Amino acid sequence: MKIVVTGGTGFLGQQLVRALCERGTLTDANGTVRSIEQIIAVDQTQSGRLFVDDRVGYVVGDIANVGFIAHVMAADTDSVFHLAAVVSGAAEADFDLGMRVNVDGTRAILDACRAQTGIPKLVFASSVAVFGGDLPHVLTDDTQPTPQTSYGVQKLIGELLVGDCTRKGFIDGRAVRLPTIVVRPGKPNAAASSFASGIVREPLAGEIAACPVDADTAMWVLSPRAATAAFIHAHEIPSATWGPRRALNLPGLTATVAQMLEALRAVGGDAAVARVRMQPDERIRAIVRTWPGRFATTRADALGFTHDADVESIVRAYAREHATATR
Amino acid sequence: MKIVVTGGTGFLGQQLVRALCERGTLTDANGTVRSIEQIIAVDQTQSGRLFVDDRVGYVVGDIANVGFIAHVMAADTDSVFHLAAVVSGAAEADFDLGMRVNVDGTRAILDACRAQTGIPKLVFASSVAVFGGDLPHVLTDDTQPTPQTSYGVQKLIGELLVGDCTRKGFIDGRAVRLPTIVVRPGKPNAAASSFASGIVREPLAGEIAACPVDADTAMWVLSPRAATAAFIHAHEIPSATWGPRRALNLPGLTATVAQMLEALRAVGGDAAVARVRMQPDERIRAIVRTWPGRFATTRADALGFTHDADVESIVRAYAREHATATR
Repeated sequence: MKIVVTGGTGFLGQQLVRALCERGTLTDANGTVRSIEQIIAVDQTQSGRLFVDDRVGYVVGDIANVGFIAHVMAADTDSVFHLAAVVSGAAEADFDLGMRVNVDGTRAILDACRAQTGIPKLVFASSVAVFGGDLPHVLTDDTQPTPQTSYGVQKLIGELLVGDCTRKGFIDGRAVRLPTIVVRPGKPNAAASSFASGIVREPLAGEIAACPVDADTAMWVLSPRAATAAFIHAHEIPSATWGPRRALNLPGLTATVAQMLEALRAVGGDAAVARVRMQPDERIRAIVRTWPGRFATTRADALGFTHDADVESIVRAYAREHATATR
Repeated sequence: MKIVVTGGTGFLGQQLVRALCERGTLTDANGTVRSIEQIIAVDQTQSGRLFVDDRVGYVVGDIANVGFIAHVMAADTDSVFHLAAVVSGAAEADFDLGMRVNVDGTRAILDACRAQTGIPKLVFASSVAVFGGDLPHVLTDDTQPTPQTSYGVQKLIGELLVGDCTRKGFIDGRAVRLPTIVVRPGKPNAAASSFASGIVREPLAGEIAACPVDADTAMWVLSPRAATAAFIHAHEIPSATWGPRRALNLPGLTATVAQMLEALRAVGGDAAVARVRMQPDERIRAIVRTWPGRFATTRADALGFTHDADVESIVRAYAREHATATR
C-alpha cells in the first residue's frame, strides 16, 4: 500500500508515521489487509530530527498547490491521513491563510483522491472546535456544530466535503473530531490550545508557564498516543460499519485547568505547579471558552475508539517519554 | 446606495431588481434609509426581456472569476443580494461546476465585500436543501443541517462563510434558507424541484407535465412574490435584531403533490389536472425525498417574515400574472 500523511513532519504526523511503520499493515478499501510499502509524509517545512525508515519519504510543499499534491499522490495512493492544518490561533489571526490551507488544501487533496485508480481511504483530522456558542453541558453525537472561530468553520467545511465526496463515491472518507491534544512536546505554537500542553511541559522542564484561561476552564483532552491510535482505528473500521455520517466525535477526558495542575503536582511536585502563572489573556479566553468540555461519545465508543485512563496518566506518560530527555 | 444582485437576470433576480426599483430605498449598514441610485445585476448570461430602469445596469460574467467580481463591486457597493447558483440537479450531475459557482463564487463575492470602503450588507439565498437524511417530522430552528446532496453541502458551506465573515466584521451577512419556489414561470430547469412548478405551469398552458415523485411527497413551498419580499425583509432587519446565528429557515407552506394538484383543479379545472402524468423518476425522487416538508419557523416568524395564505392562492396568483399571457 502507498500511504500519504499530510502534516507528516508535525508532532502527531511523526507519531502516526512511526506507528504505521511499527504496525506494517493496513486494511485497504476492499477490506484486504496489505503491507505498507510506502509512506509519503508531506509538510510545508522539514525541520528537526525526523523518523527514519526505508518505507518513509519526506516531501516539502504546499498542500493547497493543486499540481504539487496531484504529483505527490500520483494515481496509486491507497490511503491518505490528512492532518495538515493552520492551527486555531493562526487561522483566527490570518483569515486568508486559514482558508487557503484548511479549505483549499483539503479540496486539493480531495481532488487528487478523485484522480486515483482506486477509491482511496481518507482519514481527516477534524476538531471539536467545530462546536461553539451556546452548547449543552454535555455534547452528544447529535449536537449541532456551530463553530465560533474561523478554524472551526474551516474544519467543518472540510468535514462536509469529506462527507459529500464519500457519498459521491470519490473517496472512502472518515472525519474524526480531535479533542485538545495534551501533552505536546516541543515549543508553544499558534494554537489557542497551546497553553494546555505548556502548563505541564514547561514546569516539568523547570521553566515558567503562563496559563491564559481560568482554573475552571474545562477542555476535552486526549493524549498524542491515543490520538494516533484513533487515526489508525478510524482507517480500519469497515465503511459500512462507519455508516453514512462520516464525522465523529472522538472519546476523550474532561480536564479542567485545575485538574491538570493537580496531575502536574502528582508527577512533578509542588515546585512544578509553582512555575505556572495565571495570566488571563482575553484573546485566548475568547476562543477557548467557545470550546466544549464534556461529551457523551456513544457512536465512537460503539465503534471501539478508546481514551486515556485519567489526566494524571497522560501527564505521567509525557514525563516518562519526554520530560527526562529535556532535563 | 449601490446594490449588486447576483443571478440578477434569473427569475427571482428580476423580481428582486423590479421590487427594489419600486421600493426606491433601502436601509444601509449604519441604519440610515437611503435612496437606491444604482443596481448592478450580474449574471452568467443575458437572455430574454429584461426589466428596464435608469438605475439598473446589467453585467455578464462569471462570479467565480475573482477579478471580474472585484471590478463589478469596485469599492462602493453598499449591499449585495447573492442569488446566483448552480441549481440542485446540475450540482449533483457536475460536482466541479457546483463547487466552482456555489462555493468559489460565494468566496469571490465575500472577498470583494472585504475590499469595500464600508461594511456591506449581504443577503445570501440559501436553501432548505441544507437539510436531509433522517429528519424529524417537523424541523425547527435547532434542527441540524445534514445535507445529502452536493447542492445542499455547497449552500451550507456558503452559510458558514457568511456567518464567519459576519463574525469577523467583513460583512453584515444574512443567509435565508429558501423553500421550494412555486410557481416559476418559463421553462423547466435543472433543479430537482423543477417539476413542482411544472405540474402547475404546463397544465395551465394546455401542455402535458410529468410528475417524477409520489403524490404524497411533501415540500416546503413559497411563492416568488413572498421570496422576493423575504430577501428585502432580510436586508432591512437591524443586525443586532438578527442576532449571532446568521442563517434562518424561511416560513413557507407544506404542500404535497396531491395538494398542489387539488389547487390546480380549483384554478384550472379537471382538464388541467388530467394533463399531469405520474412518471416516477428515481434520480429526482432520490434527491427530493431528502428534503424536509414541514417546519416550525419560530425565529423567522418573530423577525416578521411572512408566507403565502395557502397553496391555492399561490396557484391563483400565478394564473393571474402569467398563465393568461401564455395562452
